[in-house]
Parts: sequence; structure tokens; C-alpha cells
Amino acid sequence: MSKTRIEAFSDAVIAVAITLLALDLHVPDPAGAGTLAHRLGEQWPNYAAYVVSFLTIGIIWINHHAMLRRLVGVDHAILMFNLVLLLTIGVLPFTTALMAGYLKVAHGQHLAAVIYAGSFLVMSLAFFAMHRHLLLAKAHLLEERLTPDVRRMVLRRNAVGLLPYGVAALAGIVNAYVTLAICGLIAVFYALPGTTAD
Amino acid sequence: MSKTRIEAFSDAVIAVAITLLALDLHVPDPAGAGTLAHRLGEQWPNYAAYVVSFLTIGIIWINHHAMLRRLVGVDHAILMFNLVLLLTIGVLPFTTALMAGYLKVAHGQHLAAVIYAGSFLVMSLAFFAMHRHLLLAKAHLLEERLTPDVRRMVLRRNAVGLLPYGVAALAGIVNAYVTLAICGLIAVFYALPGTTAD
Amino acid sequence: MSKTRIEAFSDAVIAVAITLLALDLHVPDPAGAGTLAHRLGEQWPNYAAYVVSFLTIGIIWINHHAMLRRLVGVDHAILMFNLVLLLTIGVLPFTTALMAGYLKVAHGQHLAAVIYAGSFLVMSLAFFAMHRHLLLAKAHLLEERLTPDVRRMVLRRNAVGLLPYGVAALAGIVNAYVTLAICGLIAVFYALPGTTAD
Amino acid sequence: MSKTRIEAFSDAVIAVAITLLALDLHVPDPAGAGTLAHRLGEQWPNYAAYVVSFLTIGIIWINHHAMLRRLVGVDHAILMFNLVLLLTIGVLPFTTALMAGYLKVAHGQHLAAVIYAGSFLVMSLAFFAMHRHLLLAKAHLLEERLTPDVRRMVLRRNAVGLLPYGVAALAGIVNAYVTLAICGLIAVFYALPGTTAD
Repeated sequence: MSKTRIEAFSDAVIAVAITLLALDLHVPDPAGAGTLAHRLGEQWPNYAAYVVSFLTIGIIWINHHAMLRRLVGVDHAILMFNLVLLLTIGVLPFTTALMAGYLKVAHGQHLAAVIYAGSFLVMSLAFFAMHRHLLLAKAHLLEERLTPDVRRMVLRRNAVGLLPYGVAALAGIVNAYVTLAICGLIAVFYALPGTTAD
Repeated sequence: MSKTRIEAFSDAVIAVAITLLALDLHVPDPAGAGTLAHRLGEQWPNYAAYVVSFLTIGIIWINHHAMLRRLVGVDHAILMFNLVLLLTIGVLPFTTALMAGYLKVAHGQHLAAVIYAGSFLVMSLAFFAMHRHLLLAKAHLLEERLTPDVRRMVLRRNAVGLLPYGVAALAGIVNAYVTLAICGLIAVFYALPGTTAD
Repeated sequence: MSKTRIEAFSDAVIAVAITLLALDLHVPDPAGAGTLAHRLGEQWPNYAAYVVSFLTIGIIWINHHAMLRRLVGVDHAILMFNLVLLLTIGVLPFTTALMAGYLKVAHGQHLAAVIYAGSFLVMSLAFFAMHRHLLLAKAHLLEERLTPDVRRMVLRRNAVGLLPYGVAALAGIVNAYVTLAICGLIAVFYALPGTTAD
Repeated sequence: MSKTRIEAFSDAVIAVAITLLALDLHVPDPAGAGTLAHRLGEQWPNYAAYVVSFLTIGIIWINHHAMLRRLVGVDHAILMFNLVLLLTIGVLPFTTALMAGYLKVAHGQHLAAVIYAGSFLVMSLAFFAMHRHLLLAKAHLLEERLTPDVRRMVLRRNAVGLLPYGVAALAGIVNAYVTLAICGLIAVFYALPGTTAD
């Protein structure tokens, strides 16, 4: 299978998922109580979660592109790793809506926060597993032969990237706002120059 | 018509359908009764149906790619076969939501399960019909001339692939959980190496 | 501007519109009255409208492709014609849902049918206007120089294709079912070999 | 990173956002009061906002294409500017629905109008910032070396394009209908020949 079509399909799935995030921004019912300004203001968790998730999915897209760029071809196993990765990206609009809907709800906020950061962690794990498979088991499909040392270093850097999401998920047990803040900081960090492999 | 654009359109339709599956994952109303954990747990049919349908659509995408890769051009009949195939893929978010919504409902679960597996069967039939048309009627558009023997063998293997979905649909008459399990096993089977024609 | 990207964008918009049609297939509320079979059966206008609209959008996609294939480049006017065409395609999920929702409702079925066929007519008019502009005003951007006679003939055939939708819209004043049937027949007609310009 | 994939991803995100606009066209509940004609007529703000936003997103797509066409490559900073631009496009279905839902509501129409035009302004600012970055900081990635004079002129023309949206947003404080009209006029203006950089 050519690389072009796996890129096209992945681009489309990620693009739909990132755009569906906006479906969680709700227009307040005009018949409801309170001024529009007040009611829109109350929705701030939705805006915050939208921005954090949008940037996070955008960054995974950049990393996904960098990962595939190294390949000259794909096989069945790579397709399945990629499919699982897309599956974990596809649920992010749901976990984002869950986070936004429960951030201010006393009895569910901790679980929602753990699931939110947890869904980023699972996505990162799927990404790591795919990357690991490419670098260790499919070295013959890489554009340029990387030395074992370089490959191990790339993977180690990748693995380190999993930690912050683990911390964010654990933080949710204590405070959901902290989880959202950590996830936002991770997105900002990767937005800085030189932090993705573009 | 060039092959590129039929691939691009099919990729986009399949990508949208696979991502819309997540719209059936619902955020529980914060004002409802019960803990969030309990209410999310109750939704397990939605998660199971999401995973099974996501993998199934992903695998049909892989097979679709493999099928088109063999072609050097397309004509009107191929476009119409492809359109009907995409139509059957487009309804899968609906049948998936039906399965998830009725799995635990005594009076509708059997019908929902039959429709769920039935929609996979119909999609597989549309795929088989298109593949059969390409191999038997459009041999001149194939990249490499396959001997009649090889073509018959490919089709026979394809036809055998229809059986499990028929079994899953029939099983729904007895037990909806068995239907879901069979559909899941089929997806796992095709995820194994060497089972798709990538 | 290169032709490639206008094709990619149009493909994506049409693919999203065609897939959003399925959002009008509703899962009956499990808490409602009546068996699932009965309630799904009551939704037959939704299934019929889904199939008719899916095929219609699919055929406009085929024709759109054939139209653009003739071009070697695009300019601002072509982009705007295309944008208006996409706008008319984008509303089809809405008019389809309207048709499905009111087909069996005594007080609104006629208007819904007129709007349904009318939306196909408007889309066809936008397509005709764009095609006319390409053939008459942008002959220098066509891949091969078509003689004025050929161009007039292509347009005449195109114009004739508008009539059936006009008839379908008028029929809605009398009987909404007739409108749906005519729109279905048009789709089936174009599905026959040799009727689109692929 | 190659230019092709950033174009493909942006096309897909913009295409999904432009098509999701139609989700704000609602089929009136058949069980409701009033004739269908009357109730559809009452929804005219939704139709107007749909058309204005569709054309506006379509024009930003044209401009986006013209901007990227000049590039021979992309780097991390360009990807992040593009991601932020896509983020501002992704919220437009929400602000459009807000405008449509509140245009005729006395207590919220002003705020909704300011937010509506404001969302176009923010999108234009994101576009301007990205364009400025390309022309001033990434001149070495441009296909042809533009003289500093030309680059400054392009940017000045770009900056002038921000003004009308600022005016439209301010007008919302006085009259929401004026805001919608100005936004519509801007779209019509850019639909005229020679106003975009295609």
C-alpha cells in the first residue's frame, strides 16, 4: 500500500475529529433565565477544553505526519497500529465534552478529569506503540537507515512525553482544574519551537 | 476519470463515517441521578459498539484501498458500484447507535442485533459485488492481468468472508450479545497479519 | 490556483454533506411506545430520502469531477461559481431531513416536497451556471479546445437535465410521494451506464 | 514537512467546518403550532447566517490557498500559526448558530452580533498574523523572492481587510441586523473579481 493514502485517510479522520470538538460549544436556549453574557460566561470550561483539545489533536497530527514522513511504505501491521491510533483520537471529542460538562460539577469532576487526561495518555501510548513498531521492527521501511542508537534516543524522548499526561491524569484525583491546566501547558509546550519532529 | 479522485472521495466519506461513530458516546446529564462512574459504566454497549464498528470500517477501508490499487482507471459502472458501497458504509453510524441503544433493552435487542450484523453483511455484499465486477467484467482495467484461476480464487475467498456476518445476524435472533461478540471477533481476526489484501 | 486543491476541497465538502445525511436516521427512544420493528418501519421516509439524496449527491460529485477534469486551471470566477455550488450541496442534508420529517404530515408535506425537489433544482442550476461559464467564458482554460457546436450541445443536454427536477418540484404541490418517486427515478436514471460524463 | 499535507489537512478542516454550518438549519417539529411555511419563514436568520458564513469561510479558504501556494516548505512555526488559524475557523459554526439564534431576541442580539463579527475578526487576525510571519520572517521559504516593498504592500492591503469586521463588530452594539448586513456585504465584495489573491 502506498503511503499517500494512509496519510490522506489519517488527515481526514483527524480533521473531522478536531472540527467536531466545536459541537460541544452550545448556543444557550433564548428562552432560558439569565443574560446571554452570563450564560456564555458560565460555559468557560467548554471554551478552555475546546482550545486545549484542539491544540493537542493538532500537535498529534504534526507528530503523526513527521512519523509517516520517515516511511517509504506501509504493511498490514502498520495499518492496524494506525487504525488503533485513529480510534483513540476519535474518542477525544467525547472525553473533551465530558471534561467540559463536569469540570464544575462536584460529584463527577475528578473522574471526568482523570478520563480526559487519560484519553490523551491512551492516544500518546498508541502513538508510542506505533512509533516503536516502526523504529524497531520496520527499520527496512524507513527512508534513511537510522543507527540503533538514534532510534533508541528517539523512542526514549517519546516515552518521556507520556509522563506529563500521566501526571495530569493523577492530578485529576485531587483537582480537576489542575488537570486541565497541565494539559493546556503540555499543548503550549509543544507549540514552542523545536519540540515536535516536523 | 482518474483513480486518484475516487480514492480521495471514498477516503473522505469513510473517514467522516468512522469519526461520526463517536457522536453516539453521550455525556451523561450532570443533573441526572447516580454517580458519573455508574452512569458511564452503564454505557458500555456504546463503547463496545464503537470499537467494533470503528475497526470494521477501518478494515473495509484497507480492503477498499487494496481493491482500487489494482485498477488503472475507472468507468461509470465502477463509480456506481463504489457509490452504493459508500451508501452502505454511511448508515453504519446509525446501525451502531441502534445496537448500542438496544443491547440491554429486552423488547428490541434481537432486532437491533440482526440489523447491526445485517448492515455489516450488506456492506460486505456491496464490496463483494464491486470486487466481482472489477475482476470478471473489468479485467482490462486491472494493473496486471490476473489469470482466471487467480481471479476466481480471490472471489471465493471474498465470498467466504460474508459467512461470519450472516452467522452474526442469525445469532441475533437468539442472543444480541453473541452477535456483538461475533462481530468483534471478525474485526480482531482481520486485524491479524495476512488477513487483508493490503 | 492549481486544479488539485479545488478538487480536494470540493471532494471533502461533498463527502461531509453526503455522510451527514445519515444523521437524519434516528434511533427510536427505548422508553417509547410500540415495538422497535414498528417504530423503525414508521421511519421509512427517512430511509427513502437518505437513499435518494445519497445517490443524487453522489451523481453530482461524478459530474463535478467530469466538469473539472476538462480544466487546466482555475480563476477567481470559477472559484466563486464552485463555492456557490458547494453552498447548494451543503443544504441538502437539511432539505432531506425536512422531506423525511413531513412526508406523512398532512399540513406540511406539499411544501416540504417542493423544497426538497427545489433544492435539487437549485443545485442543478448552480452546476449548470458554472458549466456554462466554463464552456462559454473560459474556453481558454479547457484542456482541449471544443468546437462551439460541441459546447452548445453539452450545455443543451445539461439544460434538459434541469427539467425533471422542475417537474418533481411542481408535482409536490399535488402529491409529496410523487415528488420523492420522481427524484428517486432521476437518481436511478443517472445510475444507468452512459448518462453521466465520467 | 511537505506543503502538500498541511494543505490537505487545512482543506479537510475548513471543509468540515463549512459543511457543519448546515447543522444549524432545523427541521421544525411537526407536532408544533403554526404552518410549516410560517415556521420555516421565522428561521430566516438561520438561512442568512448560513449564507454569509459559508461564503466567508469559502473566501478564507481561497485566501489560505493563495497564501500557501507561495511557500516551498513549512516549519514548526508555520504549522502552529496554521493550527491557530484553523482553531478560529472551527468555532465559526458555533458563532453562526449564536447569531442566528439571537438575532431576533431583544436581550441578547447585541452581544451575539458582536461575537459573530468578532469571530470573523479574530479569524482574519489569525490569518494576518500567519501571513505577516511568512512574508517577514520566512522570506526564504517563499517560492519567489518578493521585494520588501511588495511584501509591505501585500501586508498593508491585508491589514485594511481587517477594518470592515471591526466596524461590523462595533455596529452590533447598536443594531445586530446591521452587523449581519455588513458581514454579508464583505462576503459579496470578496466574491467580486480581483479581490482575492487566487
